[in-house]
Amino acid sequence: MTYCAGILVQDGLVMIADTRTNAGVDDVSVFRKLHVFETPGERIFAVATSGNLSVTQSALSLLAEGIIAPGADEPETLDTATSMFRAAHLVGQALRTVKQDIGPALERDQISAEASILFGGQIRGGPLKLYMIYSTGNFIECGADSPFLQIGEHKYGRPILVRSVTFKTEIYDALKLGLISMDSTLKSNLAVGLPIDLLVLRRDKLKSELIHRIEPEEAYFHDLSEQWSDALRAAHTNIPRPPYGA
Amino acid sequence: MTYCAGILVQDGLVMIADTRTNAGVDDVSVFRKLHVFETPGERIFAVATSGNLSVTQSALSLLAEGIIAPGADEPETLDTATSMFRAAHLVGQALRTVKQDIGPALERDQISAEASILFGGQIRGGPLKLYMIYSTGNFIECGADSPFLQIGEHKYGRPILVRSVTFKTEIYDALKLGLISMDSTLKSNLAVGLPIDLLVLRRDKLKSELIHRIEPEEAYFHDLSEQWSDALRAAHTNIPRPPYGA
Repeated sequence: MTYCAGILVQDGLVMIADTRTNAGVDDVSVFRKLHVFETPGERIFAVATSGNLSVTQSALSLLAEGIIAPGADEPETLDTATSMFRAAHLVGQALRTVKQDIGPALERDQISAEASILFGGQIRGGPLKLYMIYSTGNFIECGADSPFLQIGEHKYGRPILVRSVTFKTEIYDALKLGLISMDSTLKSNLAVGLPIDLLVLRRDKLKSELIHRIEPEEAYFHDLSEQWSDALRAAHTNIPRPPYGA
Repeated sequence: MTYCAGILVQDGLVMIADTRTNAGVDDVSVFRKLHVFETPGERIFAVATSGNLSVTQSALSLLAEGIIAPGADEPETLDTATSMFRAAHLVGQALRTVKQDIGPALERDQISAEASILFGGQIRGGPLKLYMIYSTGNFIECGADSPFLQIGEHKYGRPILVRSVTFKTEIYDALKLGLISMDSTLKSNLAVGLPIDLLVLRRDKLKSELIHRIEPEEAYFHDLSEQWSDALRAAHTNIPRPPYGA
C-alpha cells in the first residue's frame, strides 16, 4: 500500500509520499515513490506513484524513453512537452500503455494492474499545476476549492486536510498538515511506512526549494507525532461532554 | 454506506451508528441501523448493521423468529441465549443463513450480499461483551488493548479513536470521542449521514442508560463539530513548522 498527497496552495506545491511497498505482509521493501525531474529555470515535474509497482516503474521508464503520439514522428518526453496539460496527457498515456500491455496477464494471475499518479509541476511561461492521473490515462486537475489530491490509502489522512487546508495556507504550514495527515495514516495502516519523501516547490521559481527524506529516527517528525497526540487529547478534553444521560 | 462504532471501556459500552442508506447517489433514505433489545435486569443487546440492507434486515427478522440449531428441537432466540458468546453465534448464523439464501441471486445481478454487524451487550451473571460479526458467521471479540470496533466506512474516523480511546476512558468521554470520529466521517463521505443513533450501556446495569437520536438541527453535535475544527486549527498552529528549507 501507499499514501501520497499533493497540496497546491497560493505559494506553491507540496508533495509527500511514503516508501513502503509490500507483496504480502512478509515481503516489505523500501522504494522511492516520489520522483522529481527538474531543469532549473525551465521546467520541474514531480511524480508520486501508487498501485502496482511494476506498472508505475515501467510507466516512468517509458516516459523517459519517450512516447510517439499518433501521427507524430518524434517521441515526446517530459522534456519536450509544451504545457503541463500536455505533460499530464503523456504521463497518462504511459500508464495506459503499460496497463494495456501487462494488465491481462496480471489479471489472469489475479494481480491488480491498477495504479495512479499524482503529477505536479510547472513549465516556464505556464501555470503551476497538480493532477491525479488514473491508469486508464484520464486525469483530474486540483483546484483552489479543494486544494489537495491524494492517492493510495487516503482515507485515514483525509479529515485533517479537509478541515485545515485552504488555498491560502502558507506553504510550510501545508507541509506540516501534510505530515500530520501522513502520520495519521502511518498510525492506522502498517502498509504505509517511513521513510517519507517530500518536495516543496514555490510557484514560478521553476526549481525545487526543498527535497527531503524523513528517516525513521528524525526528531522533528517524531516530535510532530507526539505533539499531535497531545494536542488532540487537549482538544477533545476542552469540548464539553455530551449533555445527554448522567 | 454506513459508519458504526462500538467502544468498550471499563465503565461500559457505547454504540454509535449513522442512518443513511443509498442505492446510488439519487436514492438516499434514512434507516435505523442501531437496534437495542432489552429485558431490564435480565439482558440487553445492541446490534449495529452495515452492508446490504435487505440482508441485515432479514437477518434481524430471522433472529426474532428464532434459529433451530443442528440437533435441537426448539428455535433459539436472543431471549433464550445462555451467554453472549452463544448470542453472537446466533447472530452470525442468522447473517450466514440469509447470505447463503439470497447471495447467489444478488451476485448474478452484481449486487454485493456482504454485511457485517457490531453486536454488544450483557446477560445477567455474564460479562459485558462487544463483537464484530462477519457475513460468513464468524466473529471477533473486542479486547482491552484496542477497546473499539468499527464497521462500514471506518477509515476516516479511525485516527482519533486509535490515538485517544483507552479502556480507562470515562464512558461519556468515549461517547464524545465516538461522535468526533463520526463527525470526521460525515465531513469526508456523503454516504454517511445524520441522524445519528447512540446507546450508552453501563457495565452490569443490564439496562440502557441512554438511547438517543441526534437530529441534524441538534446544537450539541453542531457545536462539537465547530469546536473540533477550531481545536484542530489551534493544535496544528501550536506545532512548530518543519525545520527544513526556508
